[in-house]
Amino acid sequence: MEWGKKMNYVDLLIRGSDKTNSIVCMGADPVLERIPIEHGSTEAKITRFYEQIIEACKSEGALPAAVKPNYAFYAQYGFEGLDALKKVCKLVKKEGIPLILDAKRGDIGKTSKAYAKEVFDFWEADCVTIAPYMGTDSVMPFIEETIGKERGVYILNRTSNPGASDFQDIEAGGKKNFEWVSDSIVKWADTALGNVGAVVGATSMQELEAVVRAFVESGKQVPLLIPGVGAQGGSAAEVIAALKKAGYNLKIARINSSSGINYAYEKQGTDDFAGAAVKVIKELNKEIGGL
Amino acid sequence: MEWGKKMNYVDLLIRGSDKTNSIVCMGADPVLERIPIEHGSTEAKITRFYEQIIEACKSEGALPAAVKPNYAFYAQYGFEGLDALKKVCKLVKKEGIPLILDAKRGDIGKTSKAYAKEVFDFWEADCVTIAPYMGTDSVMPFIEETIGKERGVYILNRTSNPGASDFQDIEAGGKKNFEWVSDSIVKWADTALGNVGAVVGATSMQELEAVVRAFVESGKQVPLLIPGVGAQGGSAAEVIAALKKAGYNLKIARINSSSGINYAYEKQGTDDFAGAAVKVIKELNKEIGGL
Repeated sequence: MEWGKKMNYVDLLIRGSDKTNSIVCMGADPVLERIPIEHGSTEAKITRFYEQIIEACKSEGALPAAVKPNYAFYAQYGFEGLDALKKVCKLVKKEGIPLILDAKRGDIGKTSKAYAKEVFDFWEADCVTIAPYMGTDSVMPFIEETIGKERGVYILNRTSNPGASDFQDIEAGGKKNFEWVSDSIVKWADTALGNVGAVVGATSMQELEAVVRAFVESGKQVPLLIPGVGAQGGSAAEVIAALKKAGYNLKIARINSSSGINYAYEKQGTDDFAGAAVKVIKELNKEIGGL
Repeated sequence: MEWGKKMNYVDLLIRGSDKTNSIVCMGADPVLERIPIEHGSTEAKITRFYEQIIEACKSEGALPAAVKPNYAFYAQYGFEGLDALKKVCKLVKKEGIPLILDAKRGDIGKTSKAYAKEVFDFWEADCVTIAPYMGTDSVMPFIEETIGKERGVYILNRTSNPGASDFQDIEAGGKKNFEWVSDSIVKWADTALGNVGAVVGATSMQELEAVVRAFVESGKQVPLLIPGVGAQGGSAAEVIAALKKAGYNLKIARINSSSGINYAYEKQGTDDFAGAAVKVIKELNKEIGGL
């Protein structure tokens, strides 16, 4: 860290990219029926599953450049699932790569403040996904908790699911709704430069290009979290081409795959789930190319 | 229940209104520094606080017509807070009034399905608040879990916070964004009639009137959750006048106050927090008038 320079999330992302030579984010979304570990409690199975995957990644030199547990997949198993989430968070923090809690939080101001406490103090996440529908006072308490720290937020901007178009693509005064959100992200970024990012799906290239253009033109560093490659059908190569064309700094982007990595063993027809996950991460790294 | 009639959330709401002679929803949002109980763990303090309030409500004949714990206020205290949430949920279920988990959930389809499992199976809530930004496939897994049951969802429509106007009020093709969401709610309601509701704040009467009009004109029963009275500045009397004018069935509405009830003792200058809460519920019931 340079003397007098404020710490920010972009630093953590760049350090993570340099360390792993990757911008792949591994989603960590446990589905018990798909975890091929026979014995133990729900908590033990989930924890061992990700422990073994992360160990294999390390020994194969293919550590992902971030890990993103999605809250829903843990919470569905009640306290046992949440205990597992705590352990998975600790595993990731130990590796010194960004821990992104995918929880789509967001509420009125004082409630978002309580959520920020949950995310950063209890789960000790580096970053969290948040929903924009409730506006400025719903996102600001999260952003304020990142000031001067290597912490960030990703605001849902143009998501990767089929229903994304329902509201996000509605035309409003010469712009689509998701473009209004992009404009707000650029504005909100001033509160904590380098800490305010956006979720943009890899499944709609035109929309992704519009968002990246807006961020690059703003002159601000807006970290991108890009889900939708792998199981959801988006192409990492196409995403990279678009980012490069716009002049976006690849090292502050993260391209996420969750079940495509977690359950790669099913497609590969092997019992070695950790080895199968490593293989997919390596393939993604190759498809992405030099940073 | 009539023979052959499908159960729905509207039945639970009407039964709750008839039982309590009220449509007040009590938010249950613990803030440790404001809970005047000296000894015990975080979990014990929160649980005893709401236990005493609910007991006082019962013995004073002023049970609220629903209780709405907001997830954030429990999660901020980690596992101890979540343990308390589990206990508060059980306290409410025992009284046979609707338990609304205010968690603003919502994600891509398979993830929302996991959240629905969390909400209905683990927390055993009757109803949950969900965010609409990600569109149809993000809300449908919740709605599907309510079919044929006394369960519901409230979709954020026009919220009560200052930032609500940022996106919700943007004009898009002759309508505001929140009106597009109202239209979707009416459409989504067909999947589970009587189970699909809306969150509409009491702080913007014009917007509330527009939403209620749309629902009444649709001919469908869309339960309303109306936050924003009390601490946030909205008026219960004005809300009721607007509902009556539109011909909306009051018994399927819930008017929420959280800190206005929970921490009423501060304003009343008393140590009797439970008695102070009862007093505010009675005042709200009086302001609302006959159902």
